[in-house]
Amino acid sequence: MSQTQGKAVVMLSGGMDSATCLAIAVAEGCETHALSFNYQQRHQAELSAAAELATQLGAASHQTLNLDLGDLGGSALTDRRIAVPESPGEGIPVTYVPARNTVFLSLALALAEVLDAERIYAGVNAIDYSGYPDCRPEYLAAFQAMANLATKRGVEGRPIEIRAPLLRLSKAEIVRRGSELGVDFSRTVSCYQADAAGHACGRCDACRLRRQGFADAGVPDPTHYFAQ
Amino acid sequence: MSQTQGKAVVMLSGGMDSATCLAIAVAEGCETHALSFNYQQRHQAELSAAAELATQLGAASHQTLNLDLGDLGGSALTDRRIAVPESPGEGIPVTYVPARNTVFLSLALALAEVLDAERIYAGVNAIDYSGYPDCRPEYLAAFQAMANLATKRGVEGRPIEIRAPLLRLSKAEIVRRGSELGVDFSRTVSCYQADAAGHACGRCDACRLRRQGFADAGVPDPTHYFAQ
Repeated sequence: MSQTQGKAVVMLSGGMDSATCLAIAVAEGCETHALSFNYQQRHQAELSAAAELATQLGAASHQTLNLDLGDLGGSALTDRRIAVPESPGEGIPVTYVPARNTVFLSLALALAEVLDAERIYAGVNAIDYSGYPDCRPEYLAAFQAMANLATKRGVEGRPIEIRAPLLRLSKAEIVRRGSELGVDFSRTVSCYQADAAGHACGRCDACRLRRQGFADAGVPDPTHYFAQ
Repeated sequence: MSQTQGKAVVMLSGGMDSATCLAIAVAEGCETHALSFNYQQRHQAELSAAAELATQLGAASHQTLNLDLGDLGGSALTDRRIAVPESPGEGIPVTYVPARNTVFLSLALALAEVLDAERIYAGVNAIDYSGYPDCRPEYLAAFQAMANLATKRGVEGRPIEIRAPLLRLSKAEIVRRGSELGVDFSRTVSCYQADAAGHACGRCDACRLRRQGFADAGVPDPTHYFAQ
């Protein structure tokens, strides 16, 4: 463990990417403050996983913010009237939650301002990004530019840095990096339709990408599937 | 009333600026969808005012999103342990809610995506802005650039336009414009510490700016004060 690098807010969904991202932030010597969102997603299993991972990985604090994104509708992940697809389609998928990363990054920015944190870590990934517009490097650069103008720290010339250490990693590289840092992937939940225990369907886009990641990394897949 | 200009999301706090902004969006021929936020602000009177104003001014819909900004702390407007000041100080005031406009604009962006709306109207004002960094024109331009990359519509070359028609108006000009458009200012709540009925203290920064606006516009001030 290196010396402290100041405070960092880490967005923690309970999935493998954000868990690895938290482990990286801790390894980089930050006092990490994990932030999860209860946005009426289909299952709460990932929130339980997030709380457990925050403790396991050594976060200084963890909080879950409630917000009613489900009331807005429009995504298979928050609107139960829209089915989760089991094979990839064309273009932006129905599992896209409108402006989700923008909303979550904005709330992370608010917490970073309150804590006077120097960094935000986001487990955004542009490789296996499933066609979401708000997972692209140019999007993150634009968010950073906006954040520099939005905040007290930005005005004072000490902008809050948005870090996305997984941005250009493949799923296999994320599996390897997380494994090196001791992330217990059996506790991470990626599945779009996990059950209450966090067990995975094995068929949705998120499961498919995750399973392939372990295979490509040559790491045994510790995921608990309910439908194999 | 002109022909419809498509759908618009209008951020509606219940204050005089956002009410005038809604009236402008309606006058510009938009099908307006008003969006308010229950973010654990000190008083709920402005939310009642928002609901009433949405109906009075002809919004097609109105919804209030709940989010726990108060849990983040850090502002006199959401943290009761921090007193609301009664005279302007130096720099960014304690009434600044960290990243508030960024969070609210992001949620408006999410709703705009769901509704396939063409515009977002925000009653942001750079003149009487009390030193908030996220009320400046350069901030809004940066948010627009980010939004263009964040959204499905942006990717498809039909970006959602952020409009801030009050940006460069003085409070007096806002009073005049709102009066012309039939805004009932007696129903708008600006005070940082309004009581349950929406009556104003007459002493905080927001009251001071509002009162001066009516005086400068030569329009009788219809505000109900509890402390005159």
